[in-house]
Amino acid sequence: MKKAIILLSGGLDSTTALFYARAKGYRCFCVIFDYGQRHKKEIKAAVRLANLTGSGFNIVKIKLPWSNSALTDRKIRVPAGRKLKDMSSEIPVTYVPARNTIFLSFAASYAESIGASKIFIGANALDYSGYPDCRPEYIRAYEQMINLGTKRGVEGKRLKIETPLISMTKAEIIRLGTKLRVPYGLTWSCYSGGKYPCGICDSCRLREKGFAEFLAATLPSRKGKD
Amino acid sequence: MKKAIILLSGGLDSTTALFYARAKGYRCFCVIFDYGQRHKKEIKAAVRLANLTGSGFNIVKIKLPWSNSALTDRKIRVPAGRKLKDMSSEIPVTYVPARNTIFLSFAASYAESIGASKIFIGANALDYSGYPDCRPEYIRAYEQMINLGTKRGVEGKRLKIETPLISMTKAEIIRLGTKLRVPYGLTWSCYSGGKYPCGICDSCRLREKGFAEFLAATLPSRKGKD
Repeated sequence: MKKAIILLSGGLDSTTALFYARAKGYRCFCVIFDYGQRHKKEIKAAVRLANLTGSGFNIVKIKLPWSNSALTDRKIRVPAGRKLKDMSSEIPVTYVPARNTIFLSFAASYAESIGASKIFIGANALDYSGYPDCRPEYIRAYEQMINLGTKRGVEGKRLKIETPLISMTKAEIIRLGTKLRVPYGLTWSCYSGGKYPCGICDSCRLREKGFAEFLAATLPSRKGKD
Repeated sequence: MKKAIILLSGGLDSTTALFYARAKGYRCFCVIFDYGQRHKKEIKAAVRLANLTGSGFNIVKIKLPWSNSALTDRKIRVPAGRKLKDMSSEIPVTYVPARNTIFLSFAASYAESIGASKIFIGANALDYSGYPDCRPEYIRAYEQMINLGTKRGVEGKRLKIETPLISMTKAEIIRLGTKLRVPYGLTWSCYSGGKYPCGICDSCRLREKGFAEFLAATLPSRKGKD
C-alpha cells in the first residue's frame, strides 16, 4: 500500500484532505503540530481523527520564540468580524511567519524516513485567510526545492505535494467531505482558544460561510444566507 | 545596523560564516538547533561563540521521531575512515532527512519576525559529506520558495540566503576564518559525541585535511601531508 503524509491540524480542510487521501488508497501518516497555538483543542481533535481513521501519527512539538502572531501570542487579539472579501487580500495578525514552510519541512523529513511519496496538505487559496503560503505558486516552488534537497529527490524518487482543496470554495470542500463521510462535528476550526467556537474569527466565519453555502446548494428549499 | 540570521552549529564552517557576517557589518542573530544530535557538545560551543561575538541567539529544540540517521540514533554507528574522495559522491548514514530544509525554515521564520533580510549558512559543496541540501542549486530553489511563502517576500522585501563558503575548500575556509580571527579552538566538529574528537568520522577528517592543507600553504617550509 502506498504511503502518504498528511499535515493534520484537526480543522475542516486538513481532515477532508486526510479522508481524501484514504479514499485514494493511501496508508496515511499524520503530522500534528503543537506550536504553542492558543487553540490547543485542534490538537486533540487531530489525534482523535487520526485514531478514528486508523492512521499513524506523530505530534511534533515546536516553539517559535520569536513569533509575534495572534495565534501564538495571547497578548495579541485574534481579529473578529473581518469582512470575507478582505480576507483573501490582507495578511492578518494570525499569520505565523513561515508556518507552512516549517510544517512541510517536517512532513518531508517524515516522508523520506518512511518512504512516502506524497504529502497531502489542505491548503486552500479561495476561501482563506490570505496567507502567502497557501498559494499554488508557493506549493510548486516548495516541491521543486525539496526534490533538490533530499536523498530521495536526488535519486529521482520525487516527493509530490498534493493540494486537493487548493482551488475549491469552502462549500465545495464540505460537499467533497460529506461524500467521504468526514465527521465534521469532530473537527475544530476556531482560532480563539475558547471552550466553544467564538463564531467571529476568520476561521469560524469561513467555516460558517462554507456550511451555509453548502446547505443552500444542497437543500434548494432553504434560502442561502451569507 | 542591518540584521542577519546565522545558522550556527558551533562547527568550523558555521562559525566562520558568523564571523564573516559580522565583518560585513551585520548585527547577527544565531539559531542553534538541539535536534537530538549525539554530538551535543556542538550546542555548547555554539552558545559560547554566540556570546563571545555579542550576537543574539535562540536555541530551537526539535525532535524528529522518525529520523534514522547515525547523528540522532545511537544504535547506528557513525562511519569511520571513509575515503575523502568518496565523501562527495556518496550520501552517508549521518544524513538527516531534510535537515537543512528544516533549519532554514526556522531561520526564515526568525528573519521575518525581526526584519532580517539575510540568512547566512555555512553550507559547503566542495569538502563536504555529500549531503544534497548543501548544493548551490538547492539553496537557490530554497530562496525562490521562501520569497513566495512569506509576507515579506510577497511585499517585495526579498530574503536572501548567503552561502559565502559554498565553493571554498576547507583550507580556504580556514584561511578566511584565520583572517577574521575565528577562535577555531572553541569550535566543535566531531560527530561521534565523545569527550574528545574521534579523529576518524567524516567531520573530523575533513577538518584535519583542511588544517593540514592550510598549514602546508601558509608555512612553505613545512611539507604538506594528506
